Amino acid sequence: MSVTLDTIREAARLIEGAVMRTPFLPAPKLSRLTGAEVFVKYENLQVTNAFKERGALVKLLALSQAERARGVIAMSAGNHAQAVAYHAARLDIPATIVMPEPTPIVKVAATRGYGARVVLAGEMLADAQAEAERIAAAEDLVWVHPYDDEAIIAGQGTIALEMLEDQPELDCLVVPVGGGGLISGMATAAKALKPDIEVIGVESRLYPSMVAALEGKPAHCGGATLAEGIAVKNVGRLTLEIVRRTVDDILLVDEAALEQAINAYMTLQKTMAEGAGAAGLAAMLAAPERFSGRRVGLVLCGGNIDPRLLSSIMVRALARDGRLVSVRITTSDRPGILGEISTLIGQEGGNIMEVSHHRLFLNVPAKGTTLDVTMETHDAGHAATILAALERAGHSVHMLDLGESRL
Amino acid sequence: MSVTLDTIREAARLIEGAVMRTPFLPAPKLSRLTGAEVFVKYENLQVTNAFKERGALVKLLALSQAERARGVIAMSAGNHAQAVAYHAARLDIPATIVMPEPTPIVKVAATRGYGARVVLAGEMLADAQAEAERIAAAEDLVWVHPYDDEAIIAGQGTIALEMLEDQPELDCLVVPVGGGGLISGMATAAKALKPDIEVIGVESRLYPSMVAALEGKPAHCGGATLAEGIAVKNVGRLTLEIVRRTVDDILLVDEAALEQAINAYMTLQKTMAEGAGAAGLAAMLAAPERFSGRRVGLVLCGGNIDPRLLSSIMVRALARDGRLVSVRITTSDRPGILGEISTLIGQEGGNIMEVSHHRLFLNVPAKGTTLDVTMETHDAGHAATILAALERAGHSVHMLDLGESRL
Repeated sequence: MSVTLDTIREAARLIEGAVMRTPFLPAPKLSRLTGAEVFVKYENLQVTNAFKERGALVKLLALSQAERARGVIAMSAGNHAQAVAYHAARLDIPATIVMPEPTPIVKVAATRGYGARVVLAGEMLADAQAEAERIAAAEDLVWVHPYDDEAIIAGQGTIALEMLEDQPELDCLVVPVGGGGLISGMATAAKALKPDIEVIGVESRLYPSMVAALEGKPAHCGGATLAEGIAVKNVGRLTLEIVRRTVDDILLVDEAALEQAINAYMTLQKTMAEGAGAAGLAAMLAAPERFSGRRVGLVLCGGNIDPRLLSSIMVRALARDGRLVSVRITTSDRPGILGEISTLIGQEGGNIMEVSHHRLFLNVPAKGTTLDVTMETHDAGHAATILAALERAGHSVHMLDLGESRL
Repeated sequence: MSVTLDTIREAARLIEGAVMRTPFLPAPKLSRLTGAEVFVKYENLQVTNAFKERGALVKLLALSQAERARGVIAMSAGNHAQAVAYHAARLDIPATIVMPEPTPIVKVAATRGYGARVVLAGEMLADAQAEAERIAAAEDLVWVHPYDDEAIIAGQGTIALEMLEDQPELDCLVVPVGGGGLISGMATAAKALKPDIEVIGVESRLYPSMVAALEGKPAHCGGATLAEGIAVKNVGRLTLEIVRRTVDDILLVDEAALEQAINAYMTLQKTMAEGAGAAGLAAMLAAPERFSGRRVGLVLCGGNIDPRLLSSIMVRALARDGRLVSVRITTSDRPGILGEISTLIGQEGGNIMEVSHHRLFLNVPAKGTTLDVTMETHDAGHAATILAALERAGHSVHMLDLGESRL
């Protein structure tokens, strides 16, 4: 068996009614931002808020009655875990999910909530993988691989069928790449239906494992990326072969572009993308000339981002736009100085969020004081006006970096 | 002329292709949360991220050539402003939008960005309204009312046509009510197509103007509500008459329910709702028994919420879930005490976000100190474990309220 347009069409028939046929819609504000004509496939609207259900369900439906009775096992700290747990429960197949011990409790609880047995094992993915393999052998469970499996790949490929059915005129698909399951399926379907469509993969620059594998080189992977869902060190054997045959190019995106893309989805499209889900848009923002004027289909493949991280990204964007400003004011230490400065900022239309007052720092003159003030402003120009007014009133002012999470 | 199923169908024909036919999809996690079968109409995916485009476009298309040449005027600080500006520009109709002076710069800029002339006038809506009426008379502009206009009402009614076409089995529509344009149109269409469908309106408890108008009493309106988009003091004359005839009931929701609903849309559905957009879900959360087991259609009518507000709502939800905890620790003041406490919290798996250290407060013993520590925890149980460990180590601990915005 191999993955073909026919197996992907069969996968589409199998999952119909059990996995959402998600909307694929024009995103005019993202089009204006990038200079291309952008369409977004909202896979974050699936029950588990990610596309992984497609492949997982196809795999589960392909099992024999004997295999179903034995039960399945998967190793994942992320969306694959919930996808397998959810659809196994629907089909009354016992499921065991092995997760690394540091997996956030909320993800463990969600997976358990779908009725799966969750085993926490090991600090790292590799340790969890070893334990999962041990349990699978000891208990004779059927392995559900997150990407290197023809049924999984065919399931993910159904996304491209739907996109081209809704928008046959697409010029280009931009697809996040982790282990390669999503892009293998999508590229197989898309190239069969429309040979001249361009299929571009996107990896996090910190985890360029598919690029390295295509070049036959070892990958240098590591570091904390916003795109955890595609932070994969080892691509699949099957997926590598399909990607080599069907994918036109793979782009790498850095953390700044991922952050900008998550924020753009949120502020312009009013939808939540996890880092991996925003990778396609990040690639467009990083290299707009490559996509300019073309009809581009993006897969918003998952929306499971931690609210604390999202909150931090939003606040950092406000700081970059000059709508949230932090300044250190050095001035004389006398009664009433805080009231004087606060009044001045208020008169200029700034909204003070936080003040801290330091007398003890050695870099402050003995009879001076510093105030750190964080305030909301309309925009960068307004912030500059307020700072100038403070300077005119005789205070020494300098901007502080608000780049760090303020939570 | 009056608003009928036929005029709404004609409106649908007029706007086809120029206003998005938004998705109307099952929301399984909201169903589980409320005990009903919930479907969501994603009007936040419109270009201006709100439903107002429908009515505005129908109104603009109904103008004569002479009226188009004169130009239009509207008064709005919100979604109506951008809807009129955007579609007037598309149709080459000159548009003037009057906004109150305190309107956030970002909304002013967005409206100008669509090519409208924006006039800032007055501190309050009433002042802006007076100035808009003055300009309209002086410059002979055509007034585009936000709700009390048959073309506008017919346009908003198209939402119900689409919802019932996609899900004919709906038992109930839950619709936000401000001036009443949205619910007048939707109820007219829905009751004509399916007489036994229940149509329920939702107002902010702080602005119960439609409830008061139906009872013939003056409304007591005022206060800061999350649902600015429906904080309307005067409902329409036309809309009141239609609501009286077609709407089954109107529920009032308080700020806590609105906040919970915004957070549920974000964390469960991965979509952004402004307060008014979340009002329908808020009503379901406040009175779940009323909707239990029924097929309920919600209109997520707008997604234009300030990122700072959204960030604050997310952080407050984490605090309520015990995932973000702030404690005051009173202990002896000796070198190394901060290291000792930080190490202990770390060993128990807490992640310290912020520390402040007070020696000068009078309520602290002269040789004592207090530390305020904000930390991330897995959940409320985990937080309790950490606090118990601190107590066992001889520190006095009490929880601080993290209910206020942390931004």
